[in-house]
Amino acid sequence: MTNLLNDMEHDFQAVPAPVEVHVAMLVFPGFTLLDLVGPQTTLSFHTTVHLVAKTLEPVASDSGIKLVPTCTFADCPQNVDVLFVPGGFGTADAMEDEETIAFLRDRGARARFVTSVCTGSLIQAAAGLLEGYEATTYWAHLDILRVLGAKPIAKRVVMDRGRISGGGVTAGIDFGLSLLAELRGDLTARTMQLLMEYDPAPPFDCGNPEDAGPEVAAQAKAALGDAVDLARAAAYRIRAKAIAD
Amino acid sequence: MTNLLNDMEHDFQAVPAPVEVHVAMLVFPGFTLLDLVGPQTTLSFHTTVHLVAKTLEPVASDSGIKLVPTCTFADCPQNVDVLFVPGGFGTADAMEDEETIAFLRDRGARARFVTSVCTGSLIQAAAGLLEGYEATTYWAHLDILRVLGAKPIAKRVVMDRGRISGGGVTAGIDFGLSLLAELRGDLTARTMQLLMEYDPAPPFDCGNPEDAGPEVAAQAKAALGDAVDLARAAAYRIRAKAIAD
Repeated sequence: MTNLLNDMEHDFQAVPAPVEVHVAMLVFPGFTLLDLVGPQTTLSFHTTVHLVAKTLEPVASDSGIKLVPTCTFADCPQNVDVLFVPGGFGTADAMEDEETIAFLRDRGARARFVTSVCTGSLIQAAAGLLEGYEATTYWAHLDILRVLGAKPIAKRVVMDRGRISGGGVTAGIDFGLSLLAELRGDLTARTMQLLMEYDPAPPFDCGNPEDAGPEVAAQAKAALGDAVDLARAAAYRIRAKAIAD
Repeated sequence: MTNLLNDMEHDFQAVPAPVEVHVAMLVFPGFTLLDLVGPQTTLSFHTTVHLVAKTLEPVASDSGIKLVPTCTFADCPQNVDVLFVPGGFGTADAMEDEETIAFLRDRGARARFVTSVCTGSLIQAAAGLLEGYEATTYWAHLDILRVLGAKPIAKRVVMDRGRISGGGVTAGIDFGLSLLAELRGDLTARTMQLLMEYDPAPPFDCGNPEDAGPEVAAQAKAALGDAVDLARAAAYRIRAKAIAD
């Protein structure tokens, strides 16, 4: 997919990219749309983003909205600069999906940056891409990273030797601007922050479990349902299989 | 579209909505994906979101990513609780699209909340929905609101008698949580803020033109190309036509 609307009347891309940077973003059933759209927006003027899925059929996110992929696992460029995986309620299934894991292993082996937001890091860890690396994930899933050989760090954005992970959902914006600074320098990232008018003013102070307090945290855990348990169970099965092999 | 993945194996909706709330979100060629996905995410557990377009064909956002609408202008429920319009590089064209404006006028006349993010407020103002109301929009377009009869306010989220508008792009998250608090109360909005891990940590202090400084602001204006001029020209044509009629 080319940047912006090349097929529309006006050319919106006023800041051309000096060297083409290819980003492969995994799209899987039950991914969280905002996990992907935050980083994709930060990168949209400055990279070529491929939305990669098994087929070109629209893929339903975990809120039901369907995105149209731009290439299949088979058609995705063999060498990408950035491999990105979002999280979502579909994480546990993706962690044990052989075709998905094989794709991530292959492109991740050669990508300059192996990146994720939210529980996307669990899927990458399931593919063996975070063994021995510091990484973060959604607040409710942090301990599961350890089961898969990564070192969990409770930070908004974690960078460790080409591995860059963001926390949950909205952390994708902070992550994406940080990644853009790595790819294109600070001036470009600062400009994109202004273009996205990223001057946050949260209406409440509830963005992490500590600030949110026990009542809100309990409500949030109830809303997550069995998502955390499913991901943990998948992690233990993957670990057990790796030890047996 | 139902909330979350009703057709998937697990029921993720642990917090049932006490009364169904219908939200119609306009999808038009060249909309900004994050303008829509921020608010849609905040509302996803607690409302029924309709992605409304002229046809059910996938609609390309201004970064090229295609979303699949869930209903057409004709099929959209006649009465919706919330009417929402995102902005984007396609704003000027949408402002003068008769079919789009007719749809907004009709549903906006009966909606409890007439809402927007980014330059979506210009499209609503073009439909006459903001005449005499305070509203905000993307930082580069603020003065254009006045041409269309609204009172521009440089704030992250502006509420005025059932009209709620958010600033540019990422302001949709602040806007969406504020709207959710109106619809479902503070506890629900606080819980959603934690579920979205909305604990922002911008890597730079560049989210508005003043903080960003002249160099970054000049870069951002260059990246916007003729988008502001096109929207302003459309606004003057619409105003002239309204005076002539």
